[in-house]
Amino acid sequence: MIQLVAADLNHVNSVILDRMQSEVALIPELAGHLIAGGGKRMRPMLTLACARLLDYGGTRHHKLAAAVEFIHTATLLHDDVVDGSGLRRGRRTANIIWGNPASVLVGDFLFSRSFELMVEDGSLKVLRILSRASAVIAEGEVDQLTAQRRVETSEDHYLGIISAKTAALFAAACRIAGVVAERDESVEQALDCYGRNLGIAFQLIDDAIDYVSDAETMGKGVGDDFRDGKVTLPVILAHARGDEADRRFWREAMEGSRTSDDDLAHAIALLKRHNAIDDTIARARTYGQRAIDALGPFRNGSAKSALVEAVEFAIARAY
Amino acid sequence: MIQLVAADLNHVNSVILDRMQSEVALIPELAGHLIAGGGKRMRPMLTLACARLLDYGGTRHHKLAAAVEFIHTATLLHDDVVDGSGLRRGRRTANIIWGNPASVLVGDFLFSRSFELMVEDGSLKVLRILSRASAVIAEGEVDQLTAQRRVETSEDHYLGIISAKTAALFAAACRIAGVVAERDESVEQALDCYGRNLGIAFQLIDDAIDYVSDAETMGKGVGDDFRDGKVTLPVILAHARGDEADRRFWREAMEGSRTSDDDLAHAIALLKRHNAIDDTIARARTYGQRAIDALGPFRNGSAKSALVEAVEFAIARAY
Repeated sequence: MIQLVAADLNHVNSVILDRMQSEVALIPELAGHLIAGGGKRMRPMLTLACARLLDYGGTRHHKLAAAVEFIHTATLLHDDVVDGSGLRRGRRTANIIWGNPASVLVGDFLFSRSFELMVEDGSLKVLRILSRASAVIAEGEVDQLTAQRRVETSEDHYLGIISAKTAALFAAACRIAGVVAERDESVEQALDCYGRNLGIAFQLIDDAIDYVSDAETMGKGVGDDFRDGKVTLPVILAHARGDEADRRFWREAMEGSRTSDDDLAHAIALLKRHNAIDDTIARARTYGQRAIDALGPFRNGSAKSALVEAVEFAIARAY
Repeated sequence: MIQLVAADLNHVNSVILDRMQSEVALIPELAGHLIAGGGKRMRPMLTLACARLLDYGGTRHHKLAAAVEFIHTATLLHDDVVDGSGLRRGRRTANIIWGNPASVLVGDFLFSRSFELMVEDGSLKVLRILSRASAVIAEGEVDQLTAQRRVETSEDHYLGIISAKTAALFAAACRIAGVVAERDESVEQALDCYGRNLGIAFQLIDDAIDYVSDAETMGKGVGDDFRDGKVTLPVILAHARGDEADRRFWREAMEGSRTSDDDLAHAIALLKRHNAIDDTIARARTYGQRAIDALGPFRNGSAKSALVEAVEFAIARAY
């Protein structure tokens, strides 16, 4: 995907760098740490690739892709405060370096700035899509906060959470390409469907990786979710399939009283015994296939290939 | 002002109650605590009163006034996290009851929801005014964070901070009335000028009150700003007018090493000796007069009287 959108992405990066500036020096300093710090620009790249898929020839999508990245960056800053995270992409998080207050407020700034960019573009339809996505993301995050440490969270509830907190922005990033290219509702829906299913697949793979990767792969250690008591799909499956002793273990682990290396080793052994990792990846593959099938109506070519590869790449991270 | 806009305000409160709902129960629970908890609805009332001043006969301003209140509520939730506050309007703050993570995320939700309301209204001009105001508020908050505990902050710098963090939303709340009433740019500017100067006056009186009120008046104790090391105009004036010993005291106080009751008593004595409170109130009166003069072009009547009284009431809180 990167090759396909490289030239457009340079324009987007220029907008990002230009519009994260402020006379208040701490704002570009803190925002730049996260924005320059190894972000993959996945969401703006989706906007660009979907625009290419539709043979869009204008430049409106540059500003809007930057707006999408600002929303994403704002949520990352707030997430790290909410989770008390210390590392992201292998670097110290902004809240560790500059403190929680600055992270909260600079997130607010980037969020406001993203709406300013959308207003400059002038499409009420884009504004509707992205304001709705932002509200849904926040709802998903609060929902996850409520579900945190509750091991009895159902698979459906969990899929609802990640559909909101992760997949909504993927879907919106793709959908707005249909708006700028002035294509009809069915095209928007197909792109939305692609992005949403890719987003769910992406998050499920992230959940699986947390129990199998080494620190280099993720920029964070194995078992972070486990130690934070984050109920993810692997845990939900292993809990559902386990016996009484297993369930007690998972309950204690999610409630925070099992955080040692031995506990993590035991958790991984239980996940393996119940095929919880493999089946999480299998679920992700299904969503990935749904994403690819959503592209069916579009003509074959380099853009479609890049979007298919994005799905395959998201899944392949688990191997 | 309340009498003038009472009927409209009922509509606004309905919108607020309706649109703070979510299937995620924690959202209306937490938002309701703050929204129902004795808020004065000052900003939405300004939108309503300004619309009345322009003889606006429609209902668009109900949704937009709710959007303004949501932005305000979101910033309060985030402010209390940033300041680590425990009390607001005499009640425990949301961050104390539900924790910082929930306060950050519900703030994000309300902020997103406010943009959804504006999108439903459909005016790009209103969206521009309020997205700009939101970015400016965040910049002002970060600027204040940077200035915090720095006693050498200049009066001009401080006025810039409160113009951004407080007065920008007052100005925007008034200005959008000119947009919905479809009046020309000069009307918008006059309303903006009224709101901005009222906002600055309001904040300066808040700053003064922190050194003179009793707990009943404010819902917080005297000296909160002092103990938090918040550099406000009374401190800036007393520091500038003091001798070397005074300056050392203020520096130590703002850096957090003078938080006892005796220290607060000494601070109040210094403020009195240098007329710092009276002169802060005098500055506020000047801004209040500018706000009233901005209403000059509008015809006399109950709406104008209510807006003038709002200024007088804001100032009178100091007595």
